[in-house]
Amino acid sequence: MLETNNIYLQKPENLGNLLRDKSLTFCIIGIGRVGLPTALSFANAGFQTIGLDINTDLVESINSKKYPLPDEPVFGKIFDTVLSNKKFRATTSLEESIPHSDVIILCLPTPMDDENIPDYSALESVSKTLNKFLSKNSLVIVESTVEPGFIEYEFTTNIEGENKTLLAGKDFGVAVCPENANPGEIYHDFTNLPRLVAGIDEKSFQFTHDIYKYVFNVKLIDMPNCRSANAVKLTTNVFRDINIAFVNELAILYEKLGIDIWTVLDAAKNKYNFQIHLPGPGVGGPCLPVNSYQFLNTERKLGGNILNIIRAARKSNEYMSQHVVNLINTSLKEKNINIEDSIITILGISYKPNVSDVQIAPSKKIISLLEKQASEIRIYDPFFKSTNVFSHNTMKNMNDALMNSDVLVLVTGHDEFRELDLEEIRKIMKNPILIDCQGIIDSKKAKLSGFTFKGIGRGEV
Amino acid sequence: MLETNNIYLQKPENLGNLLRDKSLTFCIIGIGRVGLPTALSFANAGFQTIGLDINTDLVESINSKKYPLPDEPVFGKIFDTVLSNKKFRATTSLEESIPHSDVIILCLPTPMDDENIPDYSALESVSKTLNKFLSKNSLVIVESTVEPGFIEYEFTTNIEGENKTLLAGKDFGVAVCPENANPGEIYHDFTNLPRLVAGIDEKSFQFTHDIYKYVFNVKLIDMPNCRSANAVKLTTNVFRDINIAFVNELAILYEKLGIDIWTVLDAAKNKYNFQIHLPGPGVGGPCLPVNSYQFLNTERKLGGNILNIIRAARKSNEYMSQHVVNLINTSLKEKNINIEDSIITILGISYKPNVSDVQIAPSKKIISLLEKQASEIRIYDPFFKSTNVFSHNTMKNMNDALMNSDVLVLVTGHDEFRELDLEEIRKIMKNPILIDCQGIIDSKKAKLSGFTFKGIGRGEV
Repeated sequence: MLETNNIYLQKPENLGNLLRDKSLTFCIIGIGRVGLPTALSFANAGFQTIGLDINTDLVESINSKKYPLPDEPVFGKIFDTVLSNKKFRATTSLEESIPHSDVIILCLPTPMDDENIPDYSALESVSKTLNKFLSKNSLVIVESTVEPGFIEYEFTTNIEGENKTLLAGKDFGVAVCPENANPGEIYHDFTNLPRLVAGIDEKSFQFTHDIYKYVFNVKLIDMPNCRSANAVKLTTNVFRDINIAFVNELAILYEKLGIDIWTVLDAAKNKYNFQIHLPGPGVGGPCLPVNSYQFLNTERKLGGNILNIIRAARKSNEYMSQHVVNLINTSLKEKNINIEDSIITILGISYKPNVSDVQIAPSKKIISLLEKQASEIRIYDPFFKSTNVFSHNTMKNMNDALMNSDVLVLVTGHDEFRELDLEEIRKIMKNPILIDCQGIIDSKKAKLSGFTFKGIGRGEV
Repeated sequence: MLETNNIYLQKPENLGNLLRDKSLTFCIIGIGRVGLPTALSFANAGFQTIGLDINTDLVESINSKKYPLPDEPVFGKIFDTVLSNKKFRATTSLEESIPHSDVIILCLPTPMDDENIPDYSALESVSKTLNKFLSKNSLVIVESTVEPGFIEYEFTTNIEGENKTLLAGKDFGVAVCPENANPGEIYHDFTNLPRLVAGIDEKSFQFTHDIYKYVFNVKLIDMPNCRSANAVKLTTNVFRDINIAFVNELAILYEKLGIDIWTVLDAAKNKYNFQIHLPGPGVGGPCLPVNSYQFLNTERKLGGNILNIIRAARKSNEYMSQHVVNLINTSLKEKNINIEDSIITILGISYKPNVSDVQIAPSKKIISLLEKQASEIRIYDPFFKSTNVFSHNTMKNMNDALMNSDVLVLVTGHDEFRELDLEEIRKIMKNPILIDCQGIIDSKKAKLSGFTFKGIGRGEV
C-alpha cells in the first residue's frame, strides 16, 4: 500500500516542496463534465491523479483512451498526454483510490428530484464512505455547488462518522473551491476565471489555496468560511436566473405592447449601470435552475417566505416553454391550421448554443407539451444528429427535418442557425410558420420570404 | 406677439441654421429638479428659454435670482449667467410662454397616488392645455418618464383635442427624449450619459435628435418609436429596483445563516457576468419605485399576471423598513430595554447618500413605524439640519442627536457618517446599540467599542 504524505500534518511551509516535487497524489471523485477536466488539470501539472467514478462504462472508456467530452477539445489533448505518461487513470474502486490519496477533490453533481428538491445523495454517500476509507491527515476539497452550511453541518459531520472516528480539524481538513466553469469553455474558464477558496480552518484554507494557485494559477478569492464561499457561488448564478426571468417577463409584456425587446435591450445596454440578459425559452443546464432551487431549499428549511423574487423567477423561466407553445398555437390559428394535423420542427435542443448538453433543457418541456397536440415532431440539432433524445429520434440533417413541415421553432441559437436561408426553407416547408425563441431571425426578412413570424419578445407591429 | 419659426414646417436641412443662429425659442414646462437644469442648458447654449411652472414661489424665487438646487452646484453658475444675460426667465403664464415657443419640452413629474398608481395628471392637464395654446407647427418633446404607449395613445390625442383642432404629424410634432439624470449629478449626467430619442414620425424624431445633439452633445440612441424609448427607460431603472430587492432578500437570508452579505458581494463582483447591487433599508427617490409601479400599472391595464418579479421586488424593498425596525427591536430585547422607554436616533433621512432629497425615502416609513413605539425619535441629517421633515424637528448637530440615546440607526450613507468616532459616540449614548443599514460600519470595531451591533445582511457569528 502506498503511503500518503499526511498533508494535514505538514507545516504550511512544507507544502511548496510537496508541490514542486509532485509528491502529492490527488483523487478526483466524480469525473464528469467538470470532474474529468479537473482531474486532467492535476495530472497535467505533474501529479499522480486518480479519477474515481461509479460509472463503469465511463471508467472503462477513459482507461481505453476514449475521450468523452468532444466539446471540450483542449482537454482532449491533455487527456492523451496524461494517459500516455500514466499520470492519470480512472477507477471504480474506493479502496484503490481514496486511502492512497493526499487530497480528495469532490466534483460530484448536485441534481434535483422531480419536486425540484436538491439531491445531495452523491455527496452524502461519499462523505459517509470517506469516514471508512480516508487516510488520516488527508485534505478533502469540495468543488460541487452546495447550499451554504452543507459543508459545515452535514458533509464534515458525515466524514467524522457517528462515532467520531475521525475528527475534522484534527484528523483531516475540509475546504471548498466551488467550480465555476461553463460547459463548452472549461479550459478557458479553468485558466482565467477567479476561484473562491475557504476552509473549515486556517490550514485547510491555506493548503487548498496554495494547491489551486499552483495547479491553475488564477486569481483566488479568500473567503472567511465555507458557507460564505458557497453563498457567493449561488449568488452569482441566481443573479443570472432572476435577470433572465425579468427580461422574459418583459418579453411577454412587450409582445402585447407592440415593442421589440431585442431593440429595447440593445438600447438599454448603453446605460452604464445596466447589464444585459437575454430572454429565451427558459433557463436550463446543470447550474442555474438547480442553484435557484438550492436557495429555495435553504429557505424552506429555515421557514418563512424570504426569497420571493427567486421563486417568481423560477416560475417565469419555467413558464417560457408554455409561452413558446402559445406562440405556435396562435400562429397556426392565424393560418387556420389544426395543430393535430401539423408537423412541427424543432431546431436546437441543447440548453445553450454550441454545446452538446440537454440537462434541464427548455426544449424537453416544449417537446413534451407539443407531443400531446401535434401530428409529428421532428428534431434537428447539429450536436444530436441521428440519435434518440427525450424519446424522439433526431434527424440527420436540417432539410429533412423541415421538408413539408408546418412550423419551424428555433429553440437553441446554435451558430448553424444564425445564417438560415429563409427563402430555401420556405420552399420546402408546407406552411411556413417561423417561431424564433432566440431573437436571431430578422423578422422583416422572414415576413418578406413569406413566413408567418412570431418570436419571444417580438412585439413589432 | 412674437412669431414662431414654424419649426415643424421647416425642412430638416434648415434646422442647422436655426440652431446656429439661436433663432429657436424653447419653453420648458416643469422647472424642478430636472426641468430647471434642462432649461438652463438650453439657455446656456444661447437660446431664448422660458421656464413655465405652476409653483409661483419657485417662479418668483428664480426671477429674483435665487437658485433653488444647492446640491447641483454647476448649474448654479449657469443660472447666474443666463439670468444676467436674459436668456432665461421663469413664468406661471401659459399665454406668455407656450404660443411663442418653437419647442415645448415637458419635464413634469410623474408621481404616484396613495395606492401606488402612477399619476399622470400633470402631463394630461398640460397636454389638454397645449391643444389651446400651442402654435401650429411647433414641436413637443416629453422628457418625463411615462409608460410605453402613453405618448401615442393619450398624450398626443390630448393635444389634438376632442375636435381634432390640431393634428399630430401635420400641425405639430411629438417626440420623447427621456431624462436619465441622477439627482446630485445632473450636470455630469447631462453632459455624459447617452440619451434615447424617438418621435411619432421621422421629422419629430430627426429635429429632436438634432436639437439635443446640438445642446447636450452626448451620444443619442435612436429608437423606432416613442413607446420603445419609454420602455428602455423603465427597463433600465426597474432592472436596478429588482436587483436591489434580490440582494435585500439575500441579506435577510444571510443574517439567518451567519453570513455577511457585504463580504459575499465583494467576492461576487469578481465574476465577469455579475453586477453588484447593494442591500439597504429600501429603495426611494423619484424614479425607481415609481418606474416599477408604472410597469405594474401597464400590466394592470392589460390584465393578467405577467410581471411577478417586479411585484415581488417592490414588496421586498418596501419590507426593508420593517426589517430595520425588527433589527432595532431584537437588539433592544437582547439588552432588556423596553422600546417604549427608548430614545432612537436616526442618522440620515435622504433617500440616497449626499443629496438633499427625501422623496419616497425609506426613512419615512422607518420613522412612522418607530413613532408608534419609541419614547423619542431624533433625526440628524447634514442635508436637513434644524428643519421639519416627516412632522419631526430635525437636530442641528449629531452629538445632540446621540446624547443619552439608546439606539443609533444609520439609515443613509452620507459621507459624514463614513468616519464615525465610535468610541466617542458610545460615551454619550445611554445604551449603545448600533444598527447599520448601509454596511459601512466595521462590526468588529463597533463591538470592541462596546456597541450591540446589528446590520442589514450582517449575519456574522
